Amino acid sequence: MSQPNLKARESGGLVLDSHAGLRIDGARLIDSLDRLGEIGADPAGGVTRLGLSAEEHAARVFLGDLCAAAGLEAETDPAGNLFARRPGTRRAKPVLLVGSHVDTVVRGGRLDGAYGVLAALETLRVLHEHRVSLPVEMVVVAFANEEGALVQTPFWGSRMLCGSLANPLGATDRTGRPVGAYLATAGGAPDRLADVAWPPGSVAAFIELHIEQGPSLERQGVPVGVVEGIVGRTILDIGVTGEAQHAGTTPMADRRDALTAAAEIVLAVRRIAAEDRVCATATTGFIEAAPNVTNTVPGVVRLSAEVRDTDPARQARGEDVVREQCARVAAASGCRVEVTATMRSRPVSTAPALRGVIREAADRLGLPHLTMPSGAGHDAQIVARIAPVGMIFVPSRRGISHAPGEDTGPGDLVNGANVLLQAVLGAQAELSRPDGHDSSSG
Amino acid sequence: MSQPNLKARESGGLVLDSHAGLRIDGARLIDSLDRLGEIGADPAGGVTRLGLSAEEHAARVFLGDLCAAAGLEAETDPAGNLFARRPGTRRAKPVLLVGSHVDTVVRGGRLDGAYGVLAALETLRVLHEHRVSLPVEMVVVAFANEEGALVQTPFWGSRMLCGSLANPLGATDRTGRPVGAYLATAGGAPDRLADVAWPPGSVAAFIELHIEQGPSLERQGVPVGVVEGIVGRTILDIGVTGEAQHAGTTPMADRRDALTAAAEIVLAVRRIAAEDRVCATATTGFIEAAPNVTNTVPGVVRLSAEVRDTDPARQARGEDVVREQCARVAAASGCRVEVTATMRSRPVSTAPALRGVIREAADRLGLPHLTMPSGAGHDAQIVARIAPVGMIFVPSRRGISHAPGEDTGPGDLVNGANVLLQAVLGAQAELSRPDGHDSSSG
Repeated sequence: MSQPNLKARESGGLVLDSHAGLRIDGARLIDSLDRLGEIGADPAGGVTRLGLSAEEHAARVFLGDLCAAAGLEAETDPAGNLFARRPGTRRAKPVLLVGSHVDTVVRGGRLDGAYGVLAALETLRVLHEHRVSLPVEMVVVAFANEEGALVQTPFWGSRMLCGSLANPLGATDRTGRPVGAYLATAGGAPDRLADVAWPPGSVAAFIELHIEQGPSLERQGVPVGVVEGIVGRTILDIGVTGEAQHAGTTPMADRRDALTAAAEIVLAVRRIAAEDRVCATATTGFIEAAPNVTNTVPGVVRLSAEVRDTDPARQARGEDVVREQCARVAAASGCRVEVTATMRSRPVSTAPALRGVIREAADRLGLPHLTMPSGAGHDAQIVARIAPVGMIFVPSRRGISHAPGEDTGPGDLVNGANVLLQAVLGAQAELSRPDGHDSSSG
Repeated sequence: MSQPNLKARESGGLVLDSHAGLRIDGARLIDSLDRLGEIGADPAGGVTRLGLSAEEHAARVFLGDLCAAAGLEAETDPAGNLFARRPGTRRAKPVLLVGSHVDTVVRGGRLDGAYGVLAALETLRVLHEHRVSLPVEMVVVAFANEEGALVQTPFWGSRMLCGSLANPLGATDRTGRPVGAYLATAGGAPDRLADVAWPPGSVAAFIELHIEQGPSLERQGVPVGVVEGIVGRTILDIGVTGEAQHAGTTPMADRRDALTAAAEIVLAVRRIAAEDRVCATATTGFIEAAPNVTNTVPGVVRLSAEVRDTDPARQARGEDVVREQCARVAAASGCRVEVTATMRSRPVSTAPALRGVIREAADRLGLPHLTMPSGAGHDAQIVARIAPVGMIFVPSRRGISHAPGEDTGPGDLVNGANVLLQAVLGAQAELSRPDGHDSSSG
């Protein structure tokens, strides 16, 4: 980060004072969301625009056209991350990065990350149109492949920007096709991935606006969420091995049924969070039985258990209790139960100063806000390794996300984008403060 | 069946008296099992010789060669059923049909139906070599596609022989490829299927020798099972619909988790037989969740419930209780649970007179025997619609079947084949008796 600079701090305060009345163009934002939603529109409903696919590339082309029409400059880095800047603003100083991602899951929703990218672009456009000079340059980012639905490396783009992927070219899809083959046709450059990571100190802060993807804001009737942190998450792969036996000839007492054992585990996983409240959520999302035919007692079942919490101690305790329950089921069923952690991400806190900036932005707009955790993972949790981050939530109708029914009312979408605009303005003073280099672990 | 005939009855008794010392050639039987086991041997272990596949056809070619070498005549009907006869024995009289099937499940065992076919062929060969004249002609049958693992119509060959398939050409594999395409390359003739059904009265009786496929004989140390009946079987397809929700953002109390509801059903199905003893067996062999990813609460789960019992009232009660449990889970979970019966087969009894013939055959050989139900389905249950049937079991090591580990000791295999030979001889008098037209419902 640049040296503290009193002049910059003052100009930051001046920026806000002069532009507290600035608003985004709501109709233009909604129109751009509608048009981006057509790219990868799935005939079966929803949007299928997988990371590093031709559809995600088409979305970047769309964003580039949008930038060109607005007089902004867009470029894509070798990893597929798109950046938008105002012309002539590029300086050797840390920037305020704002954005999200434009890829989706299979048959996902049209808002998810796309909303945060388009609202950031609309914000930059309004600032540009009003010739608002910012002491800390704002750069819009659309991170590539946040979901990891095709190339199996979630947060691909943000991890590349932060330099935290050890062997990026080793990433593949489920069939083993390497990321390089995807990058080559998605506007990336697999031979220049070493150039992607940003140098230390080059990001002053990162702000991500996103739909909540849960029901809390809607239920409480609050239009703005101020994210205090992103839950930590542990994914366990559980293998249950019994014996495949004939369903007609094997007496009930002689069975080592991997599926009834797995069913006990599924219910135990739920109980850990729902009844015993060991951690915030505990879910079995994946199950697969073999041989998986009606007339054979299943011999092998694989299933997942995922626990999440904002408190790392509760997250760890959740994993421990899943393992204890698996051992209990193994002893009772005679099946072998093996548990392997395939992912452990630590909870991440947003920067308190940026929470303050977001709250003040909502207050200026007269919008009630709720301080809340994020149960979902976001690029912000990756960027938090190298810079202070802030996150803004808007309500999700019925809490639905990653599904065709994902939706947010237009009023909430416009409000969220205005909070983002005001937060970008408000952050100028904060990021120019002598003590403005806030920590992500606060 | 032919008219009662005192001369025939006397000659039947004489046949047995003259040949009670006759034995099959054990080494030849074991050798033929080994050689047939190589056809469709799966590189991953076991045998994959699916009904109406090139491998099942190759097995029929192998049987034809075996017949030719033994001076027997083999022919395949348009449905793919192979029949073996002694030359010059064909008369317009009911025959004693003996055999089973040579197809397997995916990665099944090498014995299953193959043993019953090869033991029947060995029996016919010994009778032919010793020029034993039978009042009731013995015909060996290898029914096509008993398992229904590829073309999804189990008991295809025996149902075709009995004329009980309404629209045979409508049968397909899972991809919709029609049975006609398979028959054309498997030695069948799809344009002549109408010729397959045998005329009423043409089967005097059917005897099937088979491995038990369960652990009872081995556990009790008894080499011969006399099957009293084949269990009835009901297969229920259960659809559970909840809501696919984000596993991180959806509070536990707000979930309609189709998988935790399905897990309750899996455990209830087991309990029905294992604890409440409503029916003999109750199994969930199949389960499939959607979207089936670690970070989404499953929105839809499909699973199977299969109940079996030799008593039709208990079989029906088993289905009723599964449905009651599904309704209970639906009410408690908020998920929609739909239950559809996809198959109901009634229990079938073997003919008491043939049970007697089999017991006497084992007694003559000094082999202990156990009267028992068959938990598995067999071609015999189909043929029981048109003729009295008898079934002989031999022990299955560790009760394993439909799996690479399927095995029976060579001594038990040879004993079983000798019981079959003696039963074929003993049945001659029985089937020539004035009251010999036994009922399959006895």
